[in-house]
Amino acid sequence: MFQFEIQATCSNTGARCGCFHTPHGPVTTPRFMPVGTLGTVKGVTTSQLAETGAQMVLSNTYHLHLQPGEEIVADAGGLHRFMGWDGPMLTDSGGFQVFSLGDLNRIDDEGVDFRNPRNGSRILLTPERSMQIQMRLGADVAMAFDQCPPYPATENDVAEACRRTHAWLGRCADAHQRDDQALFGIVQGGCFPHLRDLSARTVASFNLPGIAIGGVSVGEPVEEMHQIVRQVTPLLPADRPRYLMGIGTLREMAVAVANGIDMFDCVLPTRLGRHGTALVGGERWNLRNARFRHDHTPLDPNCPCIACRQHTRAYLHHLIRSEELLGLTLLSIHNLTHLIRFTTAMGQAIRDGCFSEDFAPWEPSSRAHHTW
Amino acid sequence: MFQFEIQATCSNTGARCGCFHTPHGPVTTPRFMPVGTLGTVKGVTTSQLAETGAQMVLSNTYHLHLQPGEEIVADAGGLHRFMGWDGPMLTDSGGFQVFSLGDLNRIDDEGVDFRNPRNGSRILLTPERSMQIQMRLGADVAMAFDQCPPYPATENDVAEACRRTHAWLGRCADAHQRDDQALFGIVQGGCFPHLRDLSARTVASFNLPGIAIGGVSVGEPVEEMHQIVRQVTPLLPADRPRYLMGIGTLREMAVAVANGIDMFDCVLPTRLGRHGTALVGGERWNLRNARFRHDHTPLDPNCPCIACRQHTRAYLHHLIRSEELLGLTLLSIHNLTHLIRFTTAMGQAIRDGCFSEDFAPWEPSSRAHHTW
Repeated sequence: MFQFEIQATCSNTGARCGCFHTPHGPVTTPRFMPVGTLGTVKGVTTSQLAETGAQMVLSNTYHLHLQPGEEIVADAGGLHRFMGWDGPMLTDSGGFQVFSLGDLNRIDDEGVDFRNPRNGSRILLTPERSMQIQMRLGADVAMAFDQCPPYPATENDVAEACRRTHAWLGRCADAHQRDDQALFGIVQGGCFPHLRDLSARTVASFNLPGIAIGGVSVGEPVEEMHQIVRQVTPLLPADRPRYLMGIGTLREMAVAVANGIDMFDCVLPTRLGRHGTALVGGERWNLRNARFRHDHTPLDPNCPCIACRQHTRAYLHHLIRSEELLGLTLLSIHNLTHLIRFTTAMGQAIRDGCFSEDFAPWEPSSRAHHTW
Repeated sequence: MFQFEIQATCSNTGARCGCFHTPHGPVTTPRFMPVGTLGTVKGVTTSQLAETGAQMVLSNTYHLHLQPGEEIVADAGGLHRFMGWDGPMLTDSGGFQVFSLGDLNRIDDEGVDFRNPRNGSRILLTPERSMQIQMRLGADVAMAFDQCPPYPATENDVAEACRRTHAWLGRCADAHQRDDQALFGIVQGGCFPHLRDLSARTVASFNLPGIAIGGVSVGEPVEEMHQIVRQVTPLLPADRPRYLMGIGTLREMAVAVANGIDMFDCVLPTRLGRHGTALVGGERWNLRNARFRHDHTPLDPNCPCIACRQHTRAYLHHLIRSEELLGLTLLSIHNLTHLIRFTTAMGQAIRDGCFSEDFAPWEPSSRAHHTW
């Protein structure tokens, strides 16, 4: 269980394609993973989600703990049964949301004390508590409880967050006791190379079935993020999947795959969809725009999703202008399909030996644009 | 084209089941028809709509004229192509919405002058204009432009609306010139038996492929509505489909079928769904209710829709509590499936010779409750 088979590697870059085996089926990598915050990818049914090519789906421990609570999910038979998704799932640790959304009272070595935004009650989230909740939720992958410092932060603050993250990882590893659930560690260290180095080596030493790079996509320049990835991936075990948290644009995914990343997640495709924006050919199209009013062609003629196969730009424009729910659903489905197809195409290119030529570096004008 | 085959009749009531043939396929009757106001059944994809058992789908001329405008729909190849629905479609005349939603300037024998709520411009809707718009939209069935008086109204006002409706029907019949589109007339007359009698005989004399009973479900007591139906249907040609406008509750549909009605429409199933309410066993369940929080059973174990087959009451409760779009979509799909299954079951009962026993009168405790 949780074996990661590498099936092909690129001879010119660090890219590899493979298969990560979970109790709910394989995750072929490289792979974009849709985010289903509250046990639902917003506006998308599980059948529609399967049609996007989704394999592993994320859900958020922080949100599910507040509503409906992990006990109800566990009573339902776990998150897969609760939401009706029989494929692989991953839950985050709740840490990122506590730091970014929570009304914090106190952070110390014990954990994080915050107020429940729904009723004002106090909640203490610790590494042990995060593991308990995630074990109750029962996803295939649980993420370690970490401290993600903001950007920018002082070297002292990042060093402190690193120290705590590593101590917490030890406690997570001790507390985590489900054989049918993998625990992934998270590398922190901000934009300080020596801290990233320390964190990568420390997390790698735990010999976990997968490792994530966190503390990215928090406001740092994108080239700084790529520099971190380039530095960190060689320090991680080659035979474990590497997950770059919160990244989901074509160019950044292509560069990251070239640097040895296997898995991605991002709320952007569904959030953009809910705001009437479609991802087409590396661009963002606002479907409210009047230029689509009379355009009776498919949104993206190369895309197999129902928005592109069954409808036109003029119809999608009409739905968005009319604030129809269906418009949000169709654009969310399209955007997810778009990103998942892109990662699938990268995997095929790695197999075919043309990844470095077609995708690295990827630009809207790349030859790859015509191959997926 | 537009032939109506009656396949079985009930020997104890006026109920019949049959098949109305349209250029986009058959409509088996009795049948509930979902409403897709703006060229979309709110929150439901066309594939999901087909899975509800929907055959003929309604759309609103008033709304489509304002957004996106019939020219764009016509350029797309008509309403079927525009919205991606290849089954039968029906458009209303725009009259009902002008009277109920419009900012009216003037009503006279020529037509209705109202302000466009989007930009304040003046629009004159006449029988000829309604026909032109509906011919451009290209549904399988167009409805005659009528004047639906409010309830209550004086006998004089209803008589005047009747006179105008009949004159307008003549102009609609003259203006309507699409062989692949049927024109249905509408019987008015309010709650005045002699006016209903006059209207039924007048509309019947036009020898149209179908006839609707309008001016119901406008606030009158439900028994008054049934009295109107009982009076009117014997005056209509037996070999044409009869459509009772705006009705979509189980009991009222069962009584109306017993009185010889074939087709129904109502916005209620989707509107209730968007407000978190499910139709189950003749009741309305508010899924926000805490009693569903721990209920891990299917919403309606007898229902084949995805909400009931793939999810639980606890999950739907969670979605509605979290204001997730998916909750609205799933409940809309369920409610449509519920009403369509009910009308399908009535048809089967008519075929099986047990309609009067099982459905007329229908109550939640009827034996029929267990047969669909």
